[in-house]
Formats: sequence, structure tokens, C-alpha cells
Amino acid sequence: MDMETRIKTLGALRLNNLYGSDFLLTWDKSDEEISGILQATEILKALRDNNRRTRIFSSGLAVSIFRDKSTRTRFSFAAAANLLGLAVQELDETKSQVSHGETVRETATMISFLTEVIGIRDDMYIGEGHTYMKMVSDAVREGFREGILPQLPAIVNLQCDIDHPTQTMADLMHLVRHFGGVDKLRGKKITMSWAYSPSYGKPLSVPQGVIGLMTRFGMHVVLAHPEGYGLMPRVMEIAVEQSEKSGGSFEVTDSMEEAFSGAHIVYPKSWAPYHVMEKRTTLLSNGDIRGLEVLEKECLEYNKKYIDWECTQSLMKRADDALYLHCLPADISGVSCERGEVEASVFERFRKATYTQAGYKPYIIAAVIFLSKVKDPAAVLSEFSKGTGRRVF
Amino acid sequence: MDMETRIKTLGALRLNNLYGSDFLLTWDKSDEEISGILQATEILKALRDNNRRTRIFSSGLAVSIFRDKSTRTRFSFAAAANLLGLAVQELDETKSQVSHGETVRETATMISFLTEVIGIRDDMYIGEGHTYMKMVSDAVREGFREGILPQLPAIVNLQCDIDHPTQTMADLMHLVRHFGGVDKLRGKKITMSWAYSPSYGKPLSVPQGVIGLMTRFGMHVVLAHPEGYGLMPRVMEIAVEQSEKSGGSFEVTDSMEEAFSGAHIVYPKSWAPYHVMEKRTTLLSNGDIRGLEVLEKECLEYNKKYIDWECTQSLMKRADDALYLHCLPADISGVSCERGEVEASVFERFRKATYTQAGYKPYIIAAVIFLSKVKDPAAVLSEFSKGTGRRVF
Amino acid sequence: MDMETRIKTLGALRLNNLYGSDFLLTWDKSDEEISGILQATEILKALRDNNRRTRIFSSGLAVSIFRDKSTRTRFSFAAAANLLGLAVQELDETKSQVSHGETVRETATMISFLTEVIGIRDDMYIGEGHTYMKMVSDAVREGFREGILPQLPAIVNLQCDIDHPTQTMADLMHLVRHFGGVDKLRGKKITMSWAYSPSYGKPLSVPQGVIGLMTRFGMHVVLAHPEGYGLMPRVMEIAVEQSEKSGGSFEVTDSMEEAFSGAHIVYPKSWAPYHVMEKRTTLLSNGDIRGLEVLEKECLEYNKKYIDWECTQSLMKRADDALYLHCLPADISGVSCERGEVEASVFERFRKATYTQAGYKPYIIAAVIFLSKVKDPAAVLSEFSKGTGRRVF
Repeated sequence: MDMETRIKTLGALRLNNLYGSDFLLTWDKSDEEISGILQATEILKALRDNNRRTRIFSSGLAVSIFRDKSTRTRFSFAAAANLLGLAVQELDETKSQVSHGETVRETATMISFLTEVIGIRDDMYIGEGHTYMKMVSDAVREGFREGILPQLPAIVNLQCDIDHPTQTMADLMHLVRHFGGVDKLRGKKITMSWAYSPSYGKPLSVPQGVIGLMTRFGMHVVLAHPEGYGLMPRVMEIAVEQSEKSGGSFEVTDSMEEAFSGAHIVYPKSWAPYHVMEKRTTLLSNGDIRGLEVLEKECLEYNKKYIDWECTQSLMKRADDALYLHCLPADISGVSCERGEVEASVFERFRKATYTQAGYKPYIIAAVIFLSKVKDPAAVLSEFSKGTGRRVF
Repeated sequence: MDMETRIKTLGALRLNNLYGSDFLLTWDKSDEEISGILQATEILKALRDNNRRTRIFSSGLAVSIFRDKSTRTRFSFAAAANLLGLAVQELDETKSQVSHGETVRETATMISFLTEVIGIRDDMYIGEGHTYMKMVSDAVREGFREGILPQLPAIVNLQCDIDHPTQTMADLMHLVRHFGGVDKLRGKKITMSWAYSPSYGKPLSVPQGVIGLMTRFGMHVVLAHPEGYGLMPRVMEIAVEQSEKSGGSFEVTDSMEEAFSGAHIVYPKSWAPYHVMEKRTTLLSNGDIRGLEVLEKECLEYNKKYIDWECTQSLMKRADDALYLHCLPADISGVSCERGEVEASVFERFRKATYTQAGYKPYIIAAVIFLSKVKDPAAVLSEFSKGTGRRVF
Repeated sequence: MDMETRIKTLGALRLNNLYGSDFLLTWDKSDEEISGILQATEILKALRDNNRRTRIFSSGLAVSIFRDKSTRTRFSFAAAANLLGLAVQELDETKSQVSHGETVRETATMISFLTEVIGIRDDMYIGEGHTYMKMVSDAVREGFREGILPQLPAIVNLQCDIDHPTQTMADLMHLVRHFGGVDKLRGKKITMSWAYSPSYGKPLSVPQGVIGLMTRFGMHVVLAHPEGYGLMPRVMEIAVEQSEKSGGSFEVTDSMEEAFSGAHIVYPKSWAPYHVMEKRTTLLSNGDIRGLEVLEKECLEYNKKYIDWECTQSLMKRADDALYLHCLPADISGVSCERGEVEASVFERFRKATYTQAGYKPYIIAAVIFLSKVKDPAAVLSEFSKGTGRRVF
């Protein structure tokens, strides 16, 4: 599709609800909106590739709040903000008055006076990240309504306890590019599988985000995990509903072999048991250090029982020349740990593919910000594509 | 007042001394200069609200040095710098050679080669912050004079041991807006009152800055505090002199009730006792840990005696429908601490007002930088207002 | 030389190999390339002094990785990136997944999707810094070749275990300016001398970089150090080869007096003994804390034997009205330490000169980035010089 056609296609979509909105969960967005984000991602990427200037802002802040470690999302957010003309300002809660007991509402307002977007990662505790993002959103909406803020910052979920939308939309973009179109995904079997990792406490947001997004396109989505590693019930329900509506299917199995059989796409990845994450949140908020230690020991013990849940060459052979996905960094057996999520030979074969997958994230984030901040996106993108503004002189 | 009138008014003021100058203490600036900063603040805000581009720089650094925690000032400085086209670069002294015993003069020069402004917060120790800022200023002035620096960075006080000018000018802007003009402040009673907080060691720069600025406009300024919480003698003298010159008054009382009676504006806030802060500086420089512990215990004990100095509903009733001010974050009883500076119901009633007050700070800082860097501010602002440059595409 | 002549001169040089290249070691670059960097440095500085806009990028990231403390290089890199229109994004390895055992190849790719340049300081361990930079370079080149990265980030060495090219080229710029041209350096005696400092473990990259660069211009280069403080053999060889080729000379002596006699330029500076640095690397990688303590004690003991290696007034008298160089911060006797590299009176006499020397670094870095990113540098600089774009409005 050439640029003009893409922009025209984008212009025909109903995207009004994205304007002025946050992006917290993919399933809160309509199919047209998800489609619009993919389209805007392609266009922004193509404009940059064609050395077009894409700054919509001559000033304005993009605030980031990382409550957990981050490399690729941090740099993706920075790159996306910069691509649109915003300056990144990070809220480091250890260097701020936040540590003085300030309320979320107040901090959110104080960092937002000239802020266009707030990107947040808060994925450590079940029941917290999404709630925190909504609190920030409520605060800035109230501030905007009351005239305290001259513009409404968009809240962008850079990973919470429930979803990791900029990751899963980058994953989706990768699939669309790989298979040649969203319509080509129909009928494909995609397997989101638990895999063993020595660090047992990884967030649930990636598997949840994957089943919460991929069930929308008529795919056969399979979730595989050992007993005890189930996901949040609400997300499971959404996956069921969406798969029915889209004419696909959604299955859960406790056999990695079965899940891989005939799969076109596999996404083997470690995550923590949901109920343990819940317990952990309680213990933490009670400051029960002893309880946490006991829990951790139990978990590691339990986790080790499933050391065989590894994405091996022989397992890949059960799949139908499947595309391997990972949000990175992967725990690669013999490389980053003794036994991990994936055999080195499998990862190495898909290394380039996983890097390509990761490479969509900056543009996905840029597209999400863009569609939240621009009322007539097609008109602006058209101006960019025809204008004389160059990215590099 | 419309934009054109404002710009004309600004153009008629004698602001030449601001060009190329630092901003360390409000009382070093003339009435016309303070007036010019308020005017420039309004204009920059209006330009932004009208989607006008206000970048005066296409390149240049805005360096920040925070020797104490900061959220709103950090973000205000970042927003202001960005509004004018500067990129923020923070000097983190733990990551720099400063910790290798480098002199202030040398560090100041080394961070200034392409730097337009240096914002500094250094408010922890009596006798240090302002001195440090002057050392930095002297160093960069010498560097500029000697041709080592191609431009002279302006030093902006983002809170020192003596004054917090960008805060108090934001406070003043808020009052001007609230009452409908600087001239409307004449005759108003404004009370800067000490209030109880469980953290007893807050800087004196806000109350000092408030009496050092608000005594210039013909207001009846009342400073209320318990015995032992007096402010720096030099600032007290300035308050007396200015209140006489302006036709207002300046009183000190040890009764919060009396201070609130008939007040039009109240600013109840905790601060540390001056003499204790002095002792603390000495003990710290002697590394007397034991002495510091003893001092802290005594202070907390003494502080607790005044737990009744709280801004309550009943106290507010003594005031004349007064406007409540706070530089935030406030210690709110039952919210951020058990007993604090202000009752939750009072704070909640003025929450929006205090957020509005805080919202002027980015524009105040931008105005301070702008007037220090631009020789003919009215001409440039006029170009911005008539030009085609948009902030948001 | 006026701007037009300079740009013409630059245009006549063969600089094609700089385009798309990294800058890791000065001796990997041709004489014309070094000359081109000096010329571009002068032009970029003159353009800025003439208030010309020099942004070649309207978007793009400049990533910095500091594995050791830095003030002047950090700010120089930030200023250079900003001068060209790039936004700085620092990779803080403690806040990233790097600490989760991610490979260098993967991290390098993940931070590079929209990145134009990566500046790296990694100077702590012999055998590591340069190797790390090459790994990053290999990774991004592979990513670019495979189409994962839409542009190739240039790697700029901001100090490794072998060389500190942006420092030594700033030093060279300073000499060229001081003596009135590169050709005026021919026949001058320049002494790179070890000097005592109580902190014995400073990197070898400055002395190595100095002998690796200054031997190219027909100077008489003298390296002076006590026994045991020799430099890396490979760099010594390069110095010999280059001095022969350039018609200069390269000598090593263990007498500071002899080295200073008749010198036109002196660069007295502390560095660690090479063999100790090697041992230290081994002990560190074995986690041998006890061994490290023993080594440190021995080193300090040994180091103290040479406390007389100090740049004194009387020593300076042996030199021929020599120019004193230092990369800063210097260990000044009686100022930053009891006994150090240089007498206070000597340093004070050259303080302004050393600050001037440091002031070239931002432009050197900008020139290095510029020549790596722009195919026809003379054409672009010419456009900048004739265009209407202003740096300050």
C-alpha cells in the first residue's frame, strides 16, 4: 500500500474516540481504533524512512514514570516522544516529593502543567498498576476540566499488572507484516505458552495482553500453562468473548506439546502464578518479610517442577514452521541462564525476527500518542508527506 | 488586557538590567522588573494558550542542579526551558567529578560551554545555598569575561536558604489574578503563618521569600510564628523597609488567631527554627553525628509543643473569606500525616486554588529566563504573537 | 581564515571514510580526516558564534552510556548532540534490563531503533572499554545490515581503556589555536609526563591518546614516567611509527626534569601502572576482594615513592615558556589534595588556558558526529552559513 492510500484508509476510519483519550487496555478500543493505530504506525515509519519531518509539537513534555526496570520500553517511549517533537522528562520518585507522602492526584497534576503525554510502567503488583494509571488519568482529567491544566495529557500504559498494549500491538504489527495483512491472520493458530525461567516472578501482563488482543482477529488462540499459572479471570473472559465474536477460538491447555502442534505462531514466555502474585501483594502491603521469604521459597520449588517447559527444537518441529515471538529479553538456556524459556538454537534462528518485532514499538507508541493528540490525523499526515520538512538536513 | 496592550505595557518598562542578569533574590530587582516578569508571564502563557510557538533558541542547554528533592520545581524548570527551546541537562553530583573534589568555579565553567541558563536548588543549609549560587554566578561571569564561555548563562534561584523567588512570584501572580490586578492588593491583609508539621526541618526560604516580596505592594503583611521560629534578621529588615516604602505594614505576632483575624490571604506553612538551622549547619560541617541526633530530638520535642498551630475551619472563620495559599505539598491532617499544617476540609476547599497557584511556576521561570536572555523582549514577543509558528501542528 | 575558505578547505579533503563510521581511536583515522575534524570544529564553532542554526536533525536520539563518572564529557556530549538537533537519552544500566543479564548485542540493538549516535565512556578496566565499544559497533552494524535498524548509529569513544580521542583532539585544537596552525607544531617539544596524585588508579587513556595523536605532526614527543608506569605496548609502537613518519621524534625518559627541559608544551598528569591495571582486572573478574586490597595497599605505597613528580614553578622554568595542558580536573597541591600533580601557582597561571582547552570538546564531539552523519559536509555547512536559520531568535 502506498503512503497516499494508507493515509486515505486511515482517514476513513472512525478514530474520534482516540482523540483526547488514554491508552490503557487494548480491549477498551474498537477494532477500527486498533486498525487505525496499525495504519498510523506504518505511516509514521514510512514518513521517517522517507526522511520526512514528523514533529507535531514545537514544545511540550512527555513524562515517563518507570516503577520497574526498563530498557526497550524506556528507549521506545523516548524515541516516540522525540519523533513527535516532545522532550522527555522522567519522574524519578526517589528524587521527588512523592517520597514525602504526596498524593497521586497532586503529583499527577504538578507534573502535567505543560505535559502532552504521561507514559507509565507499573507492573510489579497485581491490582496496582492499572489502578494507579486510572488515578493519574482521573487526576489530570479533573485538572483539565477545572482549567488548571491548559491541555489534557494522554496516559499511555507502558505495562501494568493487566496489559502491555504497546508490546502486544508491536507484536501484532510484526504478525501483520510477516503474514501480509490483518486478514491473513484469520485461521492461524497462535500459542501463548508459559515457559520455565529461574526468575519466577515475571508480570502477567504480556500473556494477558496477548490473549486479550490476538483473540480479535479470527485466530485460534491457545493458552498453555502448568497448573497454578492461570491468568486473571476477567482477561480470560474477554479472550473467550472476543474469540467468539471474531470467529476464532480460544483454548486453554496444560500441555506445551499439544499447544505447539500445528501452531503458526508461538510465544513461549515465563510468568508468575496469579494467586502467588496476589498473595505477594498482600504480604508486601503488610510488610510481612518472613512470609515473603517463605512464599518465594515455595514458588521457586514449585516453579522448578516445570523446568521442562522449554521451547526446544523438537517442540518447534511439532509446529507448522511457526514464527517464534518474544518480548525480550528472553531467558535463553545456556546463555543468560542454565535452563530457561528457550533453547539457544531456536532463539538464534529467530533472533533477527524478535529484534524486528521489538523495532515496531517506538512507532506504535508514537502512533498512540499521535492519534490521541491530533484531531484530524489524516490531514496532518498528508501535510507531513507532502511538506518540505526533512528529518535529516 | 489584550495581548497587544500587554506587550506594549511590557515594552514601556525599564527592564534593561534584567538582560544578562541572574535571578537570586526578588528584593534585588526593581518594582518595574517584578512587574515586567508578571507581564511576560502572562504573555508567554497567552501565546502558548493561543498555540503560538515561543522557542527563542534552536539550540542551547538549560542545566539544573538539584541539591534537594523536587517535583514541581524540577518539572516547572523543565517545562519552562522546553517552552523556550532549551534542552535540560541535569548535573547529578553523584555521577560527576564533583565528588572528586573539583572546585565550584571549575564545575560551573565546565557545564556552561553551551549553556544558556543554570537553575539551582540548594536550600538545606543556612548560609550555603545563596553563597553557592553566587559562586556559580561569579565563575560563569569570569568565564564569559575571559572569553572562555561564548555566552553568559543566567543563574536562576530555584530555592536557596534565603529566598524561593520563582515560588513567591508564582504566588504573587496567583494573587494578582485572583484579586484582579496588582493595584487591588493594596490594603489587603496577608498572613504568613508558621504551622505545625511532624517534619520540623523545612527550609525558611518560602516564608522569607513571601515577606520579602509581598511587603512591596502596600499590603498589611503579618508574620506569625511561635517563639524560636524567627526568620533571618536581614530579610526581616528588608520586609520592614519595603512595607514602609510601599505604604503597607509589616507586623510580627506569636498568635495564629490574631494573625488570621480579618486576613484576606493566609499562607500557613511549617518551617524550621532559624537558630536550629544554624546550629545544624555547624554540627554537620563538624561531622558531629551525636550532636545532630541530640539536636533533632530536642527540636521534635519543642516542635510538638505547637501542634495546635494548624489551619482549621474555625481559624479560617476569623479571616475575611480569605484565600488560602500553599507552595505544596501541604501536610494535611489525617491525609499525609496524623496532625499537620492544615485540616483536610480547609485544604480540600482550596485544593483547586493551590493547584492553580502552582501552575504559574513554569511560566514565571520561563519569563525570568526570557527577560534575562532577550534584549528587546517586547519586539520578540510581538513577532511571536504575529508570526505563523504554531506550538502544536 | 574566513568561513568560506574554511568550508572550501574542508570540501577539498577526502573525508568519505568518516561518513558512516565510528570514532574509536585517533590512529585509525587518516591525517586528512583528523584535519577535517579540526576544520569542522572551527566551522561549527564559528557558525554558533555567528548565531547560525546548526541542527542537522529535526528528530533522533543521541544515546550516552557512562560506565564511569563524568562531568565535562557528559555535558560536552549533551551540548554537541543538542547543537545538531539530537535529544540525549542516557542508558543507566542500573535502571535497565542490562542488569538482568541481557547480552551487549541485544541491548545495543534495543537502544538504537531511532538512534543516530551512541557515546560511550568505559575506561575502568584494561582490555574492556575498547572491546565493549567494538561489540556495540558490531551489533548495530549487523542490525543495520539486516534491516532491523533504519539508520546506523555512530559509536563515539568518550574514553576507553586505550584512547580518549575527543579529549586529545580538543587538546590538539587548543595547540593549533595557541601556536597559530598545525604546521606551527612541527619541531615543538611536547612532554607527556606522569605526575603524582594520591588517587593512583586513573585511566591510561589520556597519556596513550596524547602520544598516539601528537606524534603525527612532526613534534618532539617525550613521555616521562617513573619505572612501572609504562603504557600499553601497542600504543607505544604506534607512537614510534608515527613520529618517524611525521619527521618528529618520540622518546621515553624516567626523568621529569629532563622531559621538561626546553619543552614548549607540558602535560603532567597521573595515571595508573599498566601492569597493576591488568592485575586488577584479573582480580576483579575473579572477585578476589582480599587480593584487590593487598594490591591497592602495595600500589599506594609504591605510588608515594614518586611524590616528587609534581609540576612546580621551578620545573616550569626548565621549560621554554611552555604551555601547560591538563584534561581536568587536576589534582592541585594544597587545593584539591595535600600533594598532587601540580603546584597551585602553576595551575592558577594556566587556569584560563586549561578551561579554554576544555571548551573545544563540545565542538570536537559535534564535528565527529557531523562528519559521520553527513555525506557532503561542505555543502551542508555552506547552507548553514548562508541560510536564515538563527540559533537564538
